[in-house]
Amino acid sequence: MAGGERESGGFGVTGRVSIVGAGPGDAELMTLKALRLVQAADAIVHDALVSEEIKACFPARCQVFDVGKRAGDAASTPQAEINALLVRLARQGLHVVRLKGGDPFVFGRGGEEALHLAERRIPFEIVPGVSAMSAAAAGAGIPLTHRGLSNACTALNGFGPYLERIRWDALVGQGGTWVFYMAKRSVEAIVARLLAHGADPALGVAVVESASLPGQAVHARRLGEVARNPLPPLGAGPALVIVGPSVALLEDLNPMAGGLHADVRAVSGLSEAAR
Amino acid sequence: MAGGERESGGFGVTGRVSIVGAGPGDAELMTLKALRLVQAADAIVHDALVSEEIKACFPARCQVFDVGKRAGDAASTPQAEINALLVRLARQGLHVVRLKGGDPFVFGRGGEEALHLAERRIPFEIVPGVSAMSAAAAGAGIPLTHRGLSNACTALNGFGPYLERIRWDALVGQGGTWVFYMAKRSVEAIVARLLAHGADPALGVAVVESASLPGQAVHARRLGEVARNPLPPLGAGPALVIVGPSVALLEDLNPMAGGLHADVRAVSGLSEAAR
Repeated sequence: MAGGERESGGFGVTGRVSIVGAGPGDAELMTLKALRLVQAADAIVHDALVSEEIKACFPARCQVFDVGKRAGDAASTPQAEINALLVRLARQGLHVVRLKGGDPFVFGRGGEEALHLAERRIPFEIVPGVSAMSAAAAGAGIPLTHRGLSNACTALNGFGPYLERIRWDALVGQGGTWVFYMAKRSVEAIVARLLAHGADPALGVAVVESASLPGQAVHARRLGEVARNPLPPLGAGPALVIVGPSVALLEDLNPMAGGLHADVRAVSGLSEAAR
Repeated sequence: MAGGERESGGFGVTGRVSIVGAGPGDAELMTLKALRLVQAADAIVHDALVSEEIKACFPARCQVFDVGKRAGDAASTPQAEINALLVRLARQGLHVVRLKGGDPFVFGRGGEEALHLAERRIPFEIVPGVSAMSAAAAGAGIPLTHRGLSNACTALNGFGPYLERIRWDALVGQGGTWVFYMAKRSVEAIVARLLAHGADPALGVAVVESASLPGQAVHARRLGEVARNPLPPLGAGPALVIVGPSVALLEDLNPMAGGLHADVRAVSGLSEAAR
């Protein structure tokens, strides 16, 4: 970085890192703060969940690093390299925006990066974003909480190897709405475990893919129907799985939302609302 | 509404309602979509959690209805009246923005209002916002999930009468991070119930008041310390209570965030990080 490097030893001349939630993908669901920081950034380090529409907001003079990680993708950048990149850029005196899909503190590894920066006395801030679960719920028409139906909402890691760590008995006993992140290849496994641990087969399960994006798709069933009527294969976008009594409300809420969001492709399978 | 009323019987000439999350209060944490909708609205119906800074974005020609509800406040507008107001305004052909603090589908009663509109065939959309829990976590420096520490996050209704409905054994058994909404007057009751149901007294508990706003305050303890060293009385702002193993990270993350957010007033009590 000849010419671009400033003194890096002292605290006062170090740059800083803004760890920023970009929201679920629709550029209009970025916060005003995220857009302001992106447009003023010297360097942007972004992951695979940051959409093309959002990348189009990046200023031309800005250094851009794509460290996209997809579950199981061998080409992704290891977390240690991302941490080191943030430190290196900040020590060049740059204002770095670490842009993450959704919210940085909900399955975003924002905490790991922030700790790495804190230990090296590099100033940082956390800027919250619209979480993937809020976007999926809004797009599908599923209230995450709903008076009389669901009084709690739990977000869990739905990626295959992490399913073993979930205390399924306790989860089922606690009730409310369950949202599984990174659950694209785990739908059947999640449904099977919930049923095996006593979840009501009449509970609704919805898969929401590419929430807020043009390819958004929603598919729903009752838990007990999935075995004989599997949920359809998913496309290339990220997916969340939502299970709970308020999933049934999408039968009433999604067709109406669909009147304004024509990209909700398919909703099927729920025969009665749980109200 | 002489002169302003359009034909209201047919579906085609009815207005519509955008149920919009305004985020936690900082106007910069509104989404671009929320700002666009607010600035184009014919009528705005907002609650008490919408900040003065956000109200300053309302267009001058717009009808504004404050239906603010605070827990226990007798002067708040009953939900049935809010529902009826939305219908009446939409049937005047207006584009109504129903603006809610945080996200409409996380303890926002957005589902109830959407159902009421759906049943009357009034077009609506749900626009997600930055949830209060994401803002509180970012402001306090508490990752809601953190690899190796917390693999799940549960949002619960922390308002007094709702504590009886929480299945505390299952919640404690499930683990992860617990976020209690509307918990301002329930901190001691929540801590006592968690301990009575076997929660580890070494777990951190943080109270985050007025997240993202100028008066933001954060106070933290270990669960087992609250009885002999009570959390300080809170001010007038909304408060969330966060409990879990990743609360301890604020000891590392909050002082640094404080370098950029000078309004984080006080953090105390946690002696060791749980890493």
